[in-house]
Amino acid sequence: MANKQVGIFVGSLRKESFNRKIANYLVSSSPEGFEMKILEIGQLPFYNEDLDNGNPPKEFVDFRDAVKGLDAVLFITPEYNRSIPAVLKNAIDVASRPYGKNMWDGKPGAVISSSIGAIGGFGANHILRQSLVFINVLAMAQPEAYIGNVAKNFDDSGKLTNEDCQKFLDAFMKAFHNWIEKI
Amino acid sequence: MANKQVGIFVGSLRKESFNRKIANYLVSSSPEGFEMKILEIGQLPFYNEDLDNGNPPKEFVDFRDAVKGLDAVLFITPEYNRSIPAVLKNAIDVASRPYGKNMWDGKPGAVISSSIGAIGGFGANHILRQSLVFINVLAMAQPEAYIGNVAKNFDDSGKLTNEDCQKFLDAFMKAFHNWIEKI
Amino acid sequence: MANKQVGIFVGSLRKESFNRKIANYLVSSSPEGFEMKILEIGQLPFYNEDLDNGNPPKEFVDFRDAVKGLDAVLFITPEYNRSIPAVLKNAIDVASRPYGKNMWDGKPGAVISSSIGAIGGFGANHILRQSLVFINVLAMAQPEAYIGNVAKNFDDSGKLTNEDCQKFLDAFMKAFHNWIEKI
Amino acid sequence: MANKQVGIFVGSLRKESFNRKIANYLVSSSPEGFEMKILEIGQLPFYNEDLDNGNPPKEFVDFRDAVKGLDAVLFITPEYNRSIPAVLKNAIDVASRPYGKNMWDGKPGAVISSSIGAIGGFGANHILRQSLVFINVLAMAQPEAYIGNVAKNFDDSGKLTNEDCQKFLDAFMKAFHNWIEKI
Repeated sequence: MANKQVGIFVGSLRKESFNRKIANYLVSSSPEGFEMKILEIGQLPFYNEDLDNGNPPKEFVDFRDAVKGLDAVLFITPEYNRSIPAVLKNAIDVASRPYGKNMWDGKPGAVISSSIGAIGGFGANHILRQSLVFINVLAMAQPEAYIGNVAKNFDDSGKLTNEDCQKFLDAFMKAFHNWIEKI
Repeated sequence: MANKQVGIFVGSLRKESFNRKIANYLVSSSPEGFEMKILEIGQLPFYNEDLDNGNPPKEFVDFRDAVKGLDAVLFITPEYNRSIPAVLKNAIDVASRPYGKNMWDGKPGAVISSSIGAIGGFGANHILRQSLVFINVLAMAQPEAYIGNVAKNFDDSGKLTNEDCQKFLDAFMKAFHNWIEKI
Repeated sequence: MANKQVGIFVGSLRKESFNRKIANYLVSSSPEGFEMKILEIGQLPFYNEDLDNGNPPKEFVDFRDAVKGLDAVLFITPEYNRSIPAVLKNAIDVASRPYGKNMWDGKPGAVISSSIGAIGGFGANHILRQSLVFINVLAMAQPEAYIGNVAKNFDDSGKLTNEDCQKFLDAFMKAFHNWIEKI
Repeated sequence: MANKQVGIFVGSLRKESFNRKIANYLVSSSPEGFEMKILEIGQLPFYNEDLDNGNPPKEFVDFRDAVKGLDAVLFITPEYNRSIPAVLKNAIDVASRPYGKNMWDGKPGAVISSSIGAIGGFGANHILRQSLVFINVLAMAQPEAYIGNVAKNFDDSGKLTNEDCQKFLDAFMKAFHNWIEKI
């Protein structure tokens, strides 16, 4: 039986993004039966309905195809100004359109937010969930993942080495895998 | 005394955007003492902290300067997937950074949301307000502006001609002007 | 095989509450295999952790037992001041406590909001969903249910007779039953 | 000139409530020109529109009168299930009604949230702000106040003695006083 394809969407474009490093850890520790991979989103033009009249941009077409092929979706995001970064919102909008061709529809999903401060991206986490209701991503409720003081979890090479964080993420992913199987 | 400069930020890039047409109406009916103008946001690259290390893109610099010069800010936005469009969130993020140089800080502001359905962009309206708290835009509370069934308000040339909508917007702007004077 | 027990929680205490009338319609049209019933919440004292030290009030004990016995939960709520009514929030809090005895945990759920205006209780709907994440009620995403202009749906005796509304609710409940079976 | 009356509303009914202890600190350190006092809310029956037909309960009448007499309002709240406690939402609803007699209207306000964990009641803070928009409480934006790990701030007698927390609250109140003067 083919592996389940789990797409990861990272909300930060920064080269040394902590969220991307979290994603890298999850990719490297994919359990049997699951293939996890990061889908790039920074190349997408801003969503504009006019672009879908006629020939949509190749970036839109390719991204929608990539989302279509996924069995589940995982969002890993920082918080910008108490909400999600534009680049992540744009990815959600692009693959949800044109009307009637929502590529997210019915897929199981999960959300991880992080911040360098204590709050762990709570605002981004729940604002993202509000959009997931509309695009019908079936978002896991518990455990929630708000990773505060995120910078402390990595070694000099950028590898996620903090054991508490690893344990938390491993438990989170186990719950997510159960959620994917259930849905 | 110089006119108060009120910047308008439109959340949709569509050529025939209803929200832009609302903005056009407001610009054309600016009261004495206020100069209202639309600031373009579609040209801004996605915010990425790396871009601010060294020489930030010209689009960032110019937009931040333009926001800096404003006395007040008005957001007019559709709702995409129960939240605000990426292009509008990006504009907010760009002018809020780099750290310590938040150009929105302390300006009086207001929010208008709209939708072609009944709900009038409620989700976008309040998600935007959550970001305004952080960037310290002092957002007017009442009256709220949720413009539902927005398409019916325009004539064939795209002019906002519906009298009820005009009256509502005129009252809204009068309240906003009072709010600007108070702050 | 026993019928599935679906508890309905109504956010308004008003005798002629539209939301209760919606609940009555749903109870009267329960499909085979499902037993739907309204659980009263107006009798619960405000949640206060002190009340759980020693002997909790009989109202708490009884309500928690009632929630424990449910297979699924349905919230039907008006919007008060852009959020959910206190009486509904209190019911959620009471059955979620004491710590470690969350009676909602893992149950499939759904949300219906309504208003006499156009917006249909959007604010209440999504604020409620934020709490459902924490208490691990697995909330159905689509279809969403925002019933605007709710007053027009009833005859003089208070019966929900509007056919469009009936069809919408029937489709909503069919989707909810599928969601319950899946979870 | 009479002192400005600032009403404090505490979201927890617990006898040893941390939020009440924060309120006590603020009352004891009221600056010149401001009289701060806690208004009790636990005695209010659940809001129910039927209670306002005819003779409303004495508790409603008295509370509405008390709110009416205030120059500013301050909410100090824990987070219950990612939202505000019922008792606080109820107080907001009671003084906002009956229709046309919103006693909060136009008053300057501020929000402090706290939690024993790291997140500091972010969810409660912003859900409360959404209601403040509707009741037209003019809520201060910055500084935000999310007090995490709140339990560590008190001595054995329940007095707020942590100096960092005192400094933060003093700065917060200074900003709030400026906000009150401006509005």
